[in-house]
Amino acid sequence: MPEDNMDKPNIVTCTAPVNIAVIKYWGKRNEELILPINSSLSVTLHQDQLKTTTTVATSRSFQEDKIWLNGKEEDITHPRLQSCLREIRRLARKRRNDRGTAVDPTCLSHKVHICSVNNFPTAAGLASSAAGFACLVYSLARVFGVEGELSGIARQGSGSACRSMYGGFVQWIMGQQDDGKDSLAQQVEPETHWPELRILVLVASAERKPIGSTSGMQTSVQTSCLLKYRAESVVPGRMVEMTEAVRRKDFPAFAELAMKDSNQFHATCLDTYPPIFYLNSVSHQVINLVHCYNRHYGETRVAYTFDAGPNAVIFTLQQHVTEFVQVVQHFFPPEINGGQFIKGLQVNHADLSEELKQNIGLEQMPKGISYIISTTAGPGPCVVEDPTQHLLGSDGLPKKTV
Amino acid sequence: MPEDNMDKPNIVTCTAPVNIAVIKYWGKRNEELILPINSSLSVTLHQDQLKTTTTVATSRSFQEDKIWLNGKEEDITHPRLQSCLREIRRLARKRRNDRGTAVDPTCLSHKVHICSVNNFPTAAGLASSAAGFACLVYSLARVFGVEGELSGIARQGSGSACRSMYGGFVQWIMGQQDDGKDSLAQQVEPETHWPELRILVLVASAERKPIGSTSGMQTSVQTSCLLKYRAESVVPGRMVEMTEAVRRKDFPAFAELAMKDSNQFHATCLDTYPPIFYLNSVSHQVINLVHCYNRHYGETRVAYTFDAGPNAVIFTLQQHVTEFVQVVQHFFPPEINGGQFIKGLQVNHADLSEELKQNIGLEQMPKGISYIISTTAGPGPCVVEDPTQHLLGSDGLPKKTV
Repeated sequence: MPEDNMDKPNIVTCTAPVNIAVIKYWGKRNEELILPINSSLSVTLHQDQLKTTTTVATSRSFQEDKIWLNGKEEDITHPRLQSCLREIRRLARKRRNDRGTAVDPTCLSHKVHICSVNNFPTAAGLASSAAGFACLVYSLARVFGVEGELSGIARQGSGSACRSMYGGFVQWIMGQQDDGKDSLAQQVEPETHWPELRILVLVASAERKPIGSTSGMQTSVQTSCLLKYRAESVVPGRMVEMTEAVRRKDFPAFAELAMKDSNQFHATCLDTYPPIFYLNSVSHQVINLVHCYNRHYGETRVAYTFDAGPNAVIFTLQQHVTEFVQVVQHFFPPEINGGQFIKGLQVNHADLSEELKQNIGLEQMPKGISYIISTTAGPGPCVVEDPTQHLLGSDGLPKKTV
Repeated sequence: MPEDNMDKPNIVTCTAPVNIAVIKYWGKRNEELILPINSSLSVTLHQDQLKTTTTVATSRSFQEDKIWLNGKEEDITHPRLQSCLREIRRLARKRRNDRGTAVDPTCLSHKVHICSVNNFPTAAGLASSAAGFACLVYSLARVFGVEGELSGIARQGSGSACRSMYGGFVQWIMGQQDDGKDSLAQQVEPETHWPELRILVLVASAERKPIGSTSGMQTSVQTSCLLKYRAESVVPGRMVEMTEAVRRKDFPAFAELAMKDSNQFHATCLDTYPPIFYLNSVSHQVINLVHCYNRHYGETRVAYTFDAGPNAVIFTLQQHVTEFVQVVQHFFPPEINGGQFIKGLQVNHADLSEELKQNIGLEQMPKGISYIISTTAGPGPCVVEDPTQHLLGSDGLPKKTV
């Protein structure tokens, strides 16, 4: 029954990772194209712990483009969604014209249904838009048969999404062109390069939602003279240093630069007018804890970085994870009966010496940290081959389990 | 009995004010001479609310230099105390050599006893060293008959002390010379210039003592590239703008620049490695409150500035004091039975409209602020003519009442 086949949707499901910047992106030189005022560098987190899954379906029978996010239908006319849809369709058309009928030409005129879920709560304060737009662009490209460079399209969904298009250690080169064609992500090293590196997300119990990064960075660009100086005169040198530290797997260099750059980003938020505070008292205490811990050992064993929220992302090496997690649990005693405190990769129990606790010498902050996600660097977006994993049914609607 | 008279101490008592910088001093280019990396500008607070009182006595019978601070004998060999004593004695000697015996020549060889008290608790976190060294230098100069420029000597006791040598609005010009001879304070306008200006010190309940400013600024100079940029490229323009705003009594210009400069100073503390946090959650909330209040009225009626601690110093105009104090009391409900919440100049009661409270829309922080000191700009150091006010008795020892 060829008619039936024509109506059957073309379905693809993909997953994409979260990334955490160690040289921070803050500020756009072009709001519409999402072109940054400086380059940035990030680590892609492993999808076993943190990922977005997106199913894209096209069908002759769909009446309009539709999107469901975490179980709820959302507005498909959002300009950034439209940018990504438009750019992918443009590339698909170009590809058809260049190569003939490699793609089913009718597909291009079909409407799409998109369904996307995160395997982590939005409350974790992780930049879910990066994983979300990376996954959207990767899935759309598959369904429309587009290959090659896609980070420039993901960038137009959410700036940092371009870095989620690769695994491991990724730089987003700011580029020089007005049209943004050279503002792209590039892998510095794959996720297999530094297997000893471990990552802990310390989810702080935040009182209230901080100001969003889009409007925050607009105000910063308009008002902070320190941000302008940072972007032009500090970040270029740091990009070179950080790339080198990653290549050499030089943990102390990597760690110190990550901490300094996180602090400088938050300094420019404070230099914004009115000032923006993303770090709260829990964040301050995590920062103090990391410096006291490193001082105790006389070497940099642990580093922190903070995005536009109070949650710390901790970098350390495999051999220090057990002790440092125990230190965190000691100084931020978890809620009793509060469920699992450590999620993700297993962390063994350790006993802390009295000397270590006393040398750190901070006051305890009970319940300051809700839970820890233990993870590593991980790969870029993947296609999910198992059709039972599709989030959309053959009717093009979200499955009930979503 | 001439012998008795010779033994009787020569006693002088003076008072000196606290000052609060609106263009901040942070960082020395010369640690020993206390030469700053940028100029700064401050408002001298009124001594009716905040002052240091110092009595200096010299006598042939004193065996050694001695000092009592707030009722406790302290180490007179402290290098910065020694700098002030040495410089005043040097000027006295110079004056004697230049002009003959204008000063009793024997006095120069006498030892000094110094006794100093503050009329405010150190816990208020106000830079008591500025008032203290200003008062010491002013008193020593009187007892040794030294006149003229004294801010360069006060500067060698504590940098910001040079600004406490004048009343009203005072700039500390950083100077260019290596010997620091041109790094001096100057009055921009006297305290009578802007009688409508009112000042509120919001004493925050701090958990613990923050890092001291001397070591803090050393670390900042060594590690913060944003501080270097600020000192060289931002502050010079701001000094001109702030001087103009004060001269014109342009409250919105004065207020916005004061807030931006306070924020930028704290930004450079955050850019220091390891980072320094002086603002706590109460400080953050005061900052939010001021911006919400100003936004409600669509004009800048209130400004904040923070030194190396969590206490806010608020600037506003006479006509807004009553309401703003009520707003502070609403969002930081004081401890019940906690004694007087408002100290200093009287503040009337006001009723707040529900609309104002809702527009501000912040969560209340009970007991976040311990008390408020209500004051104005005030005069520079003064001589206390009433001999009953001396803190040292005719035996050269602190009176029992101290």
